[in-house]
Amino acid sequence: MTGRDLECVFCEVVAGTRPSRVVFQDDDTVAFLDLAPANPGHTLVVPREHATDLLDASPEQATAVARTAQLVARLQRDRLGADGVTLFQANRAAGWQDVFHLHVHVVPRYDGDSLRLPWRADPADVADLDAALSELTR
Amino acid sequence: MTGRDLECVFCEVVAGTRPSRVVFQDDDTVAFLDLAPANPGHTLVVPREHATDLLDASPEQATAVARTAQLVARLQRDRLGADGVTLFQANRAAGWQDVFHLHVHVVPRYDGDSLRLPWRADPADVADLDAALSELTR
Repeated sequence: MTGRDLECVFCEVVAGTRPSRVVFQDDDTVAFLDLAPANPGHTLVVPREHATDLLDASPEQATAVARTAQLVARLQRDRLGADGVTLFQANRAAGWQDVFHLHVHVVPRYDGDSLRLPWRADPADVADLDAALSELTR
Repeated sequence: MTGRDLECVFCEVVAGTRPSRVVFQDDDTVAFLDLAPANPGHTLVVPREHATDLLDASPEQATAVARTAQLVARLQRDRLGADGVTLFQANRAAGWQDVFHLHVHVVPRYDGDSLRLPWRADPADVADLDAALSELTR
């Protein structure tokens, strides 16, 4: 099989050699339930071909995963009655990635559920914003 | 202008009638700095045409936003020296959405930064996983 990493558990899910609960699949992606869900129905979307993360993935992998994530979000709304959906995608250890095969978390959300916001949103100093912009656009 | 919501602040950013710090733009998307960043360089990616959220967006909007988010993540790695990148996308109030124009947060991450994980990951009961799968795939 092309593009498989023999050490990778999500490649095993894609190959069918690791049991999983598949919510949806197409030629480019597989969506399956997270075994440690933030809420019931929490689904992971991965590209079939191994890519470590979004930084290393091809644009085609990024867009295929986005299409499937959108579809799964709609399933969670339509089939699970989710009031909202939160997507989360971690790259590299510093970005909270734990399995090093690109994956998007699609989490069904309910009014008043117990999940916590991932960060506090405090206004930045204008000088700090301008410094970041200067670096990003130089 | 097609697809603009006159009440929407991100439509104003797209139209250029609200000042913003644009990191990148193309025919379909605009990426600009979040004014309340989780880390310096925290960028929002939006489709030019108004869509409330990922549930309501077209597949073309979802994939255009994913392409630009990937590009911004690479900029954060290459220009800001980010050790990782975390993407976050909230739909509906229950999903933590606050501005109701589809947007993806692209957050540069650094080893040991102070952000907290958005949820605890505890293994689920098999029966709960099977119940969710049954609903999602019926």
